[in-house]
Amino acid sequence: MIDLSKIGTEQQNENTMKIDQLNTLEMVRLINQEDQAVIDAVNNASESIANAVDATYEVISQGGRLVYIGAGTSGRIGVLDASEWLPTFGVGEESVVGIIAGGDHALRHPIESAEDNEQDVIDDLKAINFNKDDILCALASSGRTPYCIGGLKYANDLGAKTISLACVANSELANYADYPIEAVVGQEVVTGSTRMKSGSAQKMVLNIISTSVMIKSGKVYGNLMVDVKPTNKKLVERAKGIIMKASGCSYERAEELMELSQGQVKPSIVMEKLNIDFTTAEALLANNHGRIADALNTIKDR
Amino acid sequence: MIDLSKIGTEQQNENTMKIDQLNTLEMVRLINQEDQAVIDAVNNASESIANAVDATYEVISQGGRLVYIGAGTSGRIGVLDASEWLPTFGVGEESVVGIIAGGDHALRHPIESAEDNEQDVIDDLKAINFNKDDILCALASSGRTPYCIGGLKYANDLGAKTISLACVANSELANYADYPIEAVVGQEVVTGSTRMKSGSAQKMVLNIISTSVMIKSGKVYGNLMVDVKPTNKKLVERAKGIIMKASGCSYERAEELMELSQGQVKPSIVMEKLNIDFTTAEALLANNHGRIADALNTIKDR
Repeated sequence: MIDLSKIGTEQQNENTMKIDQLNTLEMVRLINQEDQAVIDAVNNASESIANAVDATYEVISQGGRLVYIGAGTSGRIGVLDASEWLPTFGVGEESVVGIIAGGDHALRHPIESAEDNEQDVIDDLKAINFNKDDILCALASSGRTPYCIGGLKYANDLGAKTISLACVANSELANYADYPIEAVVGQEVVTGSTRMKSGSAQKMVLNIISTSVMIKSGKVYGNLMVDVKPTNKKLVERAKGIIMKASGCSYERAEELMELSQGQVKPSIVMEKLNIDFTTAEALLANNHGRIADALNTIKDR
Repeated sequence: MIDLSKIGTEQQNENTMKIDQLNTLEMVRLINQEDQAVIDAVNNASESIANAVDATYEVISQGGRLVYIGAGTSGRIGVLDASEWLPTFGVGEESVVGIIAGGDHALRHPIESAEDNEQDVIDDLKAINFNKDDILCALASSGRTPYCIGGLKYANDLGAKTISLACVANSELANYADYPIEAVVGQEVVTGSTRMKSGSAQKMVLNIISTSVMIKSGKVYGNLMVDVKPTNKKLVERAKGIIMKASGCSYERAEELMELSQGQVKPSIVMEKLNIDFTTAEALLANNHGRIADALNTIKDR
């Protein structure tokens, strides 16, 4: 018998015992008030998150991948974060993969029994050729999902690095991870509904990990994304705006730079900042790991 | 020319101008600190959220559906919320549908240009037979996604109710919605990265809407979910725990009740509370719109 009564996310929340008797506005305000615990829980986990970021950056800078695994909401949150790397940072499946227990059908349709299987995860990880140069991040609000534990054990056997993200203290997952994170959000508004505070905490932690890793990888200059791929009207305008903000040039000049650089933001900024042509800017970036700040400093230091 | 510089989520955040020069722990803490704005923004939007909840409850109680539409992250957040209704509340596509611009392939792979099309959304809504008895909720951080505006216009033409959810003030979307919500989160940590604060605010608002509507629909008794479908080990244990908490019975008795009620939580609670058999409990629930509190009061009031 699995004793769920001892798991924090499954306990009854004293603050919401009569939520079904509140009027709508009171109900809305109470749920929002409970969500404050999400911010505090993530804050309390800052150091363990930073350690996970450093480990992930090391893996990705050496050509490895960050692989999220999870079941149900946790799986969906991992896939959500992974799906956003390409449109945000221009980095795709070569650097990040999201896996949900039961396969992509589970993104929409619950196959919740998939989480009970410690064996399926091995097939799923083999299917993407998960290996010792990758890093696994296993997500489970309860900290005990068999699918996730199976994944961590398999990654450990291969000698790969491992991160766990649970929303309870003393999670079982933590026993199998090099970099355990526990964002302890407390009891859910509706008992056991871990899609709420736990899901929000997981989303925020993954946003922090992915954004921090990409900043460290030189995808961000100041607080501007400089690897945006202008694949639609909004992103073309965004790219021009980034060039203008980073270099101080006019809208017309940004448009011209985009044409000269074949629609690339990073060489556009370097071209304008240093008053050089596209070929020279590209070469300079290539010699500086694609980092704008380093490329600019190379010239300044001469 | 679309002037994105006037949109709040596209402006540069003064607090993060040098985030690329921070060490990892400082970076993590700064992003978490910025996430506080998510809670505050949702809190400030409480009244408009409550109005949207009441409108949605009315639609769903009359057999209509809540339909989320969005592009990119916004679309993924809508699908995420919709996917969780069935495992959480035992209510599926008859009551909630999530649509992402570009179709389900966009859940994993960016088809961001899909958001620019005001026409595709009409096909997508026709495909699910969206009609005047449904309610549309259009999600767009920037408040201006053409796909969403097209959807709202179409819903208005049909005479259906409409909700908009933007993360900026004075959003264009609001002009086309009966129940506009604006959760104004301010500038993103990395400029224009609306998957972060805006995405988290959208997730929290949808969690509030769906949870509140389901509470009002009688799916929650106290703060216990009583329509849980025990489709895996964890959910079977959760169901027993709910019966024990709601009725005060022992684990062994909860196990027995689950057998007598063919694995259903609601009749199990009514059977134990009123000391009646399964058939009687089912009939009593049927006569009280499936609401436990009402069913219990019927007997008490005799």
